[in-house]
Amino acid sequence: MSGAAVKAFVLPVRVYLEDTDAQGVVYNASYFRFMERARTEWLRARGVEHAELRAEHGVQLVLTRVEAELRAPGRLSDLLQVEAAVLRAGGARIVFAHEILREGPGELTAELVCRGIAEVGCIDAEQGRPRRLPAILLTAIQESGLKE
Amino acid sequence: MSGAAVKAFVLPVRVYLEDTDAQGVVYNASYFRFMERARTEWLRARGVEHAELRAEHGVQLVLTRVEAELRAPGRLSDLLQVEAAVLRAGGARIVFAHEILREGPGELTAELVCRGIAEVGCIDAEQGRPRRLPAILLTAIQESGLKE
Amino acid sequence: MSGAAVKAFVLPVRVYLEDTDAQGVVYNASYFRFMERARTEWLRARGVEHAELRAEHGVQLVLTRVEAELRAPGRLSDLLQVEAAVLRAGGARIVFAHEILREGPGELTAELVCRGIAEVGCIDAEQGRPRRLPAILLTAIQESGLKE
Amino acid sequence: MSGAAVKAFVLPVRVYLEDTDAQGVVYNASYFRFMERARTEWLRARGVEHAELRAEHGVQLVLTRVEAELRAPGRLSDLLQVEAAVLRAGGARIVFAHEILREGPGELTAELVCRGIAEVGCIDAEQGRPRRLPAILLTAIQESGLKE
Repeated sequence: MSGAAVKAFVLPVRVYLEDTDAQGVVYNASYFRFMERARTEWLRARGVEHAELRAEHGVQLVLTRVEAELRAPGRLSDLLQVEAAVLRAGGARIVFAHEILREGPGELTAELVCRGIAEVGCIDAEQGRPRRLPAILLTAIQESGLKE
Repeated sequence: MSGAAVKAFVLPVRVYLEDTDAQGVVYNASYFRFMERARTEWLRARGVEHAELRAEHGVQLVLTRVEAELRAPGRLSDLLQVEAAVLRAGGARIVFAHEILREGPGELTAELVCRGIAEVGCIDAEQGRPRRLPAILLTAIQESGLKE
Repeated sequence: MSGAAVKAFVLPVRVYLEDTDAQGVVYNASYFRFMERARTEWLRARGVEHAELRAEHGVQLVLTRVEAELRAPGRLSDLLQVEAAVLRAGGARIVFAHEILREGPGELTAELVCRGIAEVGCIDAEQGRPRRLPAILLTAIQESGLKE
Repeated sequence: MSGAAVKAFVLPVRVYLEDTDAQGVVYNASYFRFMERARTEWLRARGVEHAELRAEHGVQLVLTRVEAELRAPGRLSDLLQVEAAVLRAGGARIVFAHEILREGPGELTAELVCRGIAEVGCIDAEQGRPRRLPAILLTAIQESGLKE
């Protein structure tokens, strides 16, 4: 599947105490929670819900590989912009690219806090075996375009 | 149900970065995770597992009320002693009392970090309606005794 | 301090996978994270930030007691309405009342998922001793009113 | 720095409700918490604590890159073995390799649940600039050996 350049989906995420740690910054695992929220909202923005995928299509999306590069520490009260865009999709797999940016007051350009990649597999909700992406997902991906 | 005084079940819990927040102390919700771990291990120490309760007895234990008094801040690297003891039990309900203590190097007495109460309901795993505690749980409670 | 009835501050909170557990519902400690987010946004809506309290007023707000009654299980994808309202305030202490409601599609009335109380202490950011609430907080509380 | 093959440090981690999600398996970000616990205990087993690194050596270890391949779903009540071993170290950087294994009852071989890589940077605790690994860390790494 190929497509035109895409304006990434962006979910604003406020940093609360729960997301930080005693080093005074956002705890590393929190970025993975933020990226998963953005993928879920990317899906919802296209009219697809986890529950519907399971109930109507018998499939489940599961994370199979994920990585993150922590570039600048997120901090308490930051308003982060968590981007999600599809990099590749096909067969039983979607690869998402994420960027987490911080826009400061009066700044012209946003600061890159974290960059990540998430590979998501589509599996049969009952037996857990790989299953081709259902049409509803392929359509959603085509409409939103691929990140170049 | 009444019983003799009980030596509380104690689970040692190390405080990691994930448990702390940017105020430099243990984040409040972490204490509820610690207390739930202790209840689960109290159960496991009596030979009862969540999965077994569901598969063999058709019931599930769910938290219905919980409170905690935060007395002294837990800190990164602390080795906390998380106590769980049954306060009352009967019908479809178990009430646990928790204390979270910190033992410092060379200290004669432990410091009270947190004190909590957790009310757990027994429900039918399918329909979610209250169900009397199964015999396996009543026996476990009787063997461990009630906190006075 | 007394005041007129208050329309509670409400923060919408979407339930993500991170908030749920293998029992298929919202994990108990998640509700405490949601309530803390609502208190923080209540503060922010009144122009007060944690960092400012510390930097300009030398104080920190810390949770000293918290309780929650879990009435109905929150579920994946729920859009919860997390209310925060001040119940009492005075000296070095603010008591918040929380309600977490779920509004379903087409429902006339919202369902109560969780009800909570949080007691917050004001302490000296350096030494950790109780400190009277600074004027900026008292004003914020007076403007928002007390829950009856 | 080069070294002989190493028997990886292993931290047993029990899976609790807090670690799982509504898909019935361990939530992805939980694996990053588990790997961080193992790195911390690897350090502690060598007599090095986060607080000591900061107080006595003026440095802090921060995660700069992390990845995980999720091979088999961890489940509630699993007893996972979380391995941490140093892959490379030098300058201001340590690269850890992690494996998370599940040993079932009566199984001859453990099942690989998750495999990860974590790159940790050593920074000045005050200004946040990269700092060469202090001797205490280099010694700890040399004593434990490098993973081949």
